Amino acid sequence: MSERRLEGIGVTPLSGVGTVIWYDQEVELPEPPASENVDADAEHDRFSNALGTAREELQAERDRTAEEVGEEEAEIFDAHLQFLNDPQITGAVEDAIDEGLPADHAIQEGFKGAIEQMEAAGGRMAERADDLRDIRDRLLRIATDAERLDLSALPEGTILLAEMLTPSDTAQLDPERVAGFATAKGGRTSHAAIFARSIGIPAVVGVGEQLLEIEADAEVAVDGEAGEVIVDPSEETRERAAEGRDVEIRTERVETADGEPVEVAANIGTAAELEGAVAQGADAVGLFRTEFLFLDRETPPDEAEQLDTYVEALDAFPEGRVVVRTLDVGGDKPIPYIDAEEEENPFLGTRGIRRSLGPDAELFRTQLRALLRAGAEGEGDLAVMFPMVATVEEVEQSLDVIEDVRAELDNEDVDHEVPELGVMIETPAAVFMGEQLAERLDFFSIGTNDLTQYVMAASRQNEAVSHLHNPRDPAVLRAIDQAVDAAHAGDAWIGMCGEMAGDPELTELLLGLGLDELSMSAVTIPDVKANIVDIDTEGAREFAEQALAASTKDQVTQMLTDNT
Amino acid sequence: MSERRLEGIGVTPLSGVGTVIWYDQEVELPEPPASENVDADAEHDRFSNALGTAREELQAERDRTAEEVGEEEAEIFDAHLQFLNDPQITGAVEDAIDEGLPADHAIQEGFKGAIEQMEAAGGRMAERADDLRDIRDRLLRIATDAERLDLSALPEGTILLAEMLTPSDTAQLDPERVAGFATAKGGRTSHAAIFARSIGIPAVVGVGEQLLEIEADAEVAVDGEAGEVIVDPSEETRERAAEGRDVEIRTERVETADGEPVEVAANIGTAAELEGAVAQGADAVGLFRTEFLFLDRETPPDEAEQLDTYVEALDAFPEGRVVVRTLDVGGDKPIPYIDAEEEENPFLGTRGIRRSLGPDAELFRTQLRALLRAGAEGEGDLAVMFPMVATVEEVEQSLDVIEDVRAELDNEDVDHEVPELGVMIETPAAVFMGEQLAERLDFFSIGTNDLTQYVMAASRQNEAVSHLHNPRDPAVLRAIDQAVDAAHAGDAWIGMCGEMAGDPELTELLLGLGLDELSMSAVTIPDVKANIVDIDTEGAREFAEQALAASTKDQVTQMLTDNT
Repeated sequence: MSERRLEGIGVTPLSGVGTVIWYDQEVELPEPPASENVDADAEHDRFSNALGTAREELQAERDRTAEEVGEEEAEIFDAHLQFLNDPQITGAVEDAIDEGLPADHAIQEGFKGAIEQMEAAGGRMAERADDLRDIRDRLLRIATDAERLDLSALPEGTILLAEMLTPSDTAQLDPERVAGFATAKGGRTSHAAIFARSIGIPAVVGVGEQLLEIEADAEVAVDGEAGEVIVDPSEETRERAAEGRDVEIRTERVETADGEPVEVAANIGTAAELEGAVAQGADAVGLFRTEFLFLDRETPPDEAEQLDTYVEALDAFPEGRVVVRTLDVGGDKPIPYIDAEEEENPFLGTRGIRRSLGPDAELFRTQLRALLRAGAEGEGDLAVMFPMVATVEEVEQSLDVIEDVRAELDNEDVDHEVPELGVMIETPAAVFMGEQLAERLDFFSIGTNDLTQYVMAASRQNEAVSHLHNPRDPAVLRAIDQAVDAAHAGDAWIGMCGEMAGDPELTELLLGLGLDELSMSAVTIPDVKANIVDIDTEGAREFAEQALAASTKDQVTQMLTDNT
Repeated sequence: MSERRLEGIGVTPLSGVGTVIWYDQEVELPEPPASENVDADAEHDRFSNALGTAREELQAERDRTAEEVGEEEAEIFDAHLQFLNDPQITGAVEDAIDEGLPADHAIQEGFKGAIEQMEAAGGRMAERADDLRDIRDRLLRIATDAERLDLSALPEGTILLAEMLTPSDTAQLDPERVAGFATAKGGRTSHAAIFARSIGIPAVVGVGEQLLEIEADAEVAVDGEAGEVIVDPSEETRERAAEGRDVEIRTERVETADGEPVEVAANIGTAAELEGAVAQGADAVGLFRTEFLFLDRETPPDEAEQLDTYVEALDAFPEGRVVVRTLDVGGDKPIPYIDAEEEENPFLGTRGIRRSLGPDAELFRTQLRALLRAGAEGEGDLAVMFPMVATVEEVEQSLDVIEDVRAELDNEDVDHEVPELGVMIETPAAVFMGEQLAERLDFFSIGTNDLTQYVMAASRQNEAVSHLHNPRDPAVLRAIDQAVDAAHAGDAWIGMCGEMAGDPELTELLLGLGLDELSMSAVTIPDVKANIVDIDTEGAREFAEQALAASTKDQVTQMLTDNT
């Protein structure tokens, strides 16, 4: 039997081999008994118990997602919980039981109307129909005592296959037991992909329909570096996959072959990830997202709680820098205590600094107070940056708030220190205004996921335009080049904290473009450091010049291939 | 009594004075009779008749919108029609009648549940609640025989005030009778605003809550140039407003004071607007949108029908150029015969050329066949441009389709001519790749509404970020400047067809940036031509250099003010 290779998108530079377990929640119902044999009271109890269990499960998954995934969308569970409390739906199930159906069939019947109604409405309502189906299947599983795959207790050497994995699914995976996972859907920046990188599981996503043909118990290798799922792998493939990476972890700072120092930092989503970042050899934290402090709770974190977290991060990097990004939320990530309206085009709406200078001014002030205090108290060097900046006015207003907070802390005689200040380069406007921004700030950090989506006018969440959402497009490279030139002209340093920074294939190109710092998921740090020590700055610059002169992303990709 | 001035956004450079009529659809219900006095059968009939009339009205408004507004969102009427057919809602009304309510109160009662449910769901569902309220009020008006304001038969000298006007509302306004309108909501690029410019009605939008305090029958002047609504205008204000513009209409081409020719063209949404464009002195058509040919119908227009329309446009400008934009639709403008999914961020989704090179390939081919044939048959010079281009690949693929169509027409021995070819500059990617695009094309046309929204990452339809969506932002000016340089370096001419091109305050700045053509709503052509003849090119260039060096839009606005 010869091996079969399926192509997907590799999301970690790791490989694993093992035995397939499918993650599949569909439940098959037994034939219903004749209605005269149905004990309506018993079936009402069965339904009501199923509702109770479903609520408990959802609440537990919500909490686990909050804790382990950190900033992820725990709010999907809230929508599900809401449906469980909708009298229109539960009433329809009760009615069906009264008409003589057992609880399981009554659940199927009772949800039908609501699902069809949502589907008929089309568009966004149709997405709600998917939620309804999920919650119906959960109730069916509970009511029929169907077994549920426990993702946290998979046998050692499991290759998990699924159509898609939610953030809460991936949060349960134990890297000691799971040899890898592959999904039919999803992209490089999906939550499952980001999580796989942060916990270091071999993973390939976006394999497509062909993945669904792989049988349970098949022997499969997942090659996250090549982006391949290999069914019935040969002896050689198996050995190579099992052997793992032989990349040296360098805990010391590195420089290019010709002696140019480059800072290699980690992107961190929760304080729990600090330890892993240090272990992988991060020199610093280049992006400390703070959303995890604010999501999944009913009231905002107070100054003291935030101070503790920021100091914890600074103490984890006593010799390094920790770049904290202020709260970056928008219409697409609702939080109970902030007043964010759903927007037609949330990516072009009230996000990041736009909220901090608007409806979330109080949260912003409290966060800045905590940060200025942490700057004085923590061991490492604090830097603070603002997300989604598009204008000089926004920077000036932010600096005014900091000056205000500083004066306030002075008056109160509370220890504080104004940190290095910077902005994310995510909007094309920030690129065009780069020099004026740099003159007012200490540093920039390029967020390539968002920058790519705005430069290309292609949503990073829409598969229909994923061919356009590619940071290797020469248009994106030119935007980066302009941002670097503007930063240096304005005497600011510039890093990159988007997904692009952690792609080892791009290290030479990025150094050639002149970036001073690269910040990435911890798991890719050893590879990027290994690359840096071999790079010659002059050669990298020439290579970047060639890439900037390209007309298409295919030409850039060809150059990258020829270069290795 | 001294006059009172309310500030809003002027959308036409026209003024008018007259007497206020409020457009207001709320209906007051009479007290319901005791339930024993209600004849349920008669009330059922009354409700059923109201449903029938509502359907007829909606269908008629839908058709009128299709015809007179052209490309507007006739689909909002479809949503309303759908609700009229929802058995959940009509059933609730029938039930309320059976319980003893007269039809009007039953309608109010029957809609309540559905409205509350939608509202409780929040976000996008809550918008549906507004639709439900609209349809409820329509039914109430019909059932109670309440009078309806006939917008097409307003008394002469009416100043129409409204919270908001829909496209179908504005389509009914007769510029001979309506002296002007003002709305509390809406922005410069709202449909009402665009329509006001195309039919030449004085209009101010976005006045805010304070507008609602103006009483019916008050004397009011609407100054679309200053963006003011003046209540109880003084004799002097009244005279100035009534007098109208004294701008000369120049039907000949114009040049700057130092002899540089500038083409001034019209943006056209339907063939019906061609005559008005000629009358206002347009040298050419700089943007002929073709969506009106495709919207509001069950099947696409065939080649012959399209050919006729394009030839009609070319014959209207025998000495000029007509720039036709190929079909530009996306997830936000559904069409029955195209398969467009609703998208999370439609402005960053499958729009324009992305559809033409993807799911709408057949429509694209047919349109190009009609265009190549029109190029040979019509009198004027045809030019064709592609919307939403972000990559060189898209241009190369489009050119391949044209080459294919050309060979096909050759084979069939059908007269044809390949027109000038260009792209809209709307995505930042097109700006960054400008030179490579220009090398492959004859011209560019900058679409400032979209370019601004992508550069600033701020939706042009979201009031919460309207302070960021400003084409005077130096970031947008720099993007325009880069596009102009790239066009000329690649030996292409470059025009502008966004709203910005028609703002007389910006003419000098735009000429200073080096634009070869300006295309706008016909009504502003005389003002812009009047400006051009006074402009000195060298001075304009210096002025543009200053504006490009600005840090904020306020600085640019100050320079514009100082310049006049």
